[in-house]
Amino acid sequence: MAEKRLTLGVAARLSRYLQILTQTRKSGRSTISSRVLSEYANVNPTQIRRDLSAFGKFGKRGVGYDVDYLITRIKDILHTAGQHNIALLGCGNLGTAIASSDVFVDHGFRIEAVFDLDPARIGQRIGGLTVQHPSEIPETVAERDIIVGVLAVPASAASSAAKSLIDSGVRIIFNYSEALLDAPPGVTVHSMSPAGELLYALYFYLS
Amino acid sequence: MAEKRLTLGVAARLSRYLQILTQTRKSGRSTISSRVLSEYANVNPTQIRRDLSAFGKFGKRGVGYDVDYLITRIKDILHTAGQHNIALLGCGNLGTAIASSDVFVDHGFRIEAVFDLDPARIGQRIGGLTVQHPSEIPETVAERDIIVGVLAVPASAASSAAKSLIDSGVRIIFNYSEALLDAPPGVTVHSMSPAGELLYALYFYLS
Repeated sequence: MAEKRLTLGVAARLSRYLQILTQTRKSGRSTISSRVLSEYANVNPTQIRRDLSAFGKFGKRGVGYDVDYLITRIKDILHTAGQHNIALLGCGNLGTAIASSDVFVDHGFRIEAVFDLDPARIGQRIGGLTVQHPSEIPETVAERDIIVGVLAVPASAASSAAKSLIDSGVRIIFNYSEALLDAPPGVTVHSMSPAGELLYALYFYLS
Repeated sequence: MAEKRLTLGVAARLSRYLQILTQTRKSGRSTISSRVLSEYANVNPTQIRRDLSAFGKFGKRGVGYDVDYLITRIKDILHTAGQHNIALLGCGNLGTAIASSDVFVDHGFRIEAVFDLDPARIGQRIGGLTVQHPSEIPETVAERDIIVGVLAVPASAASSAAKSLIDSGVRIIFNYSEALLDAPPGVTVHSMSPAGELLYALYFYLS
């Protein structure tokens, strides 16, 4: 079957649905209605039904969507089934929180290596891994097939941290810092923007 | 002048532009081109020019947008000028990272109170504030005019934490946990979804 590349909007919404469905399954529920999915995703139910019906007949009227089945199908559509390896840079409070949480693990991402410049942290264990010096990035990225770099470093250190990962072959940079990073061709930089999202929430509260 | 309510998409993009512009100003630059703004925002330049031109003539060909002026105008449009007070729940690694960063401060949000259930943390200082017991939420929210609650608690604790804030009058819940939270009428729940965003980045890498 020929496949069309998804638009940015569809891919973003499907990714969000997948995250919600995974959490729904984790909480022990096996079905979900488009209305409930809509509330969690902040997407209107008509849009959700349209997004999902484009890929086949998923839902049953009055019963809702089968969570397991929908997870499998969306993973197929997004080609994100399988395991994807992460290197985490920065083992301060934020990095430690990320390494100790299952936010990525639940979705097939595994943190395979952690790095920090601080000599006091190197050799320590966080989230079951030993903190390494960034000079070991190139070898580690190659050996452990790492494609995602997560930056939990101060904004002032983000640019050089990203560069060392990209030079070693990492193709997706997931930036938790506020720094604005330039992406060379073939590299995706995704910046978390909590302040931007909070401003957005505030607008609808104030207006 | 009569004002139209912004659509979800426009409000989201303007919020993101504002966050990028604030960071641009912080890095010492006074102008920005639609192309550069486009790269940081992952929005195409035509869309950016359309979003901004709807509110007046901002840019100069060949020079770009004046960063200060654009920040002021977007804040006007979003009605987000001024100070907005936050209560932070959860003072573990993530909460400490949030309290110590300037990610919210830079955008007119101030963390005014921090809470944790752990007796060992109560009374400690983080980010210049003293950790309080959650029993003090109602009084503190009223006294300090808090409208935003930031949840940096484990997923299992998120629902009750949100409830205590909402019962005290908080109208925006900013949820860093993976928990799916139900929002009563008049309350906005915004969940950070790093895994969802990473799945989205992965799709464009893999396809």
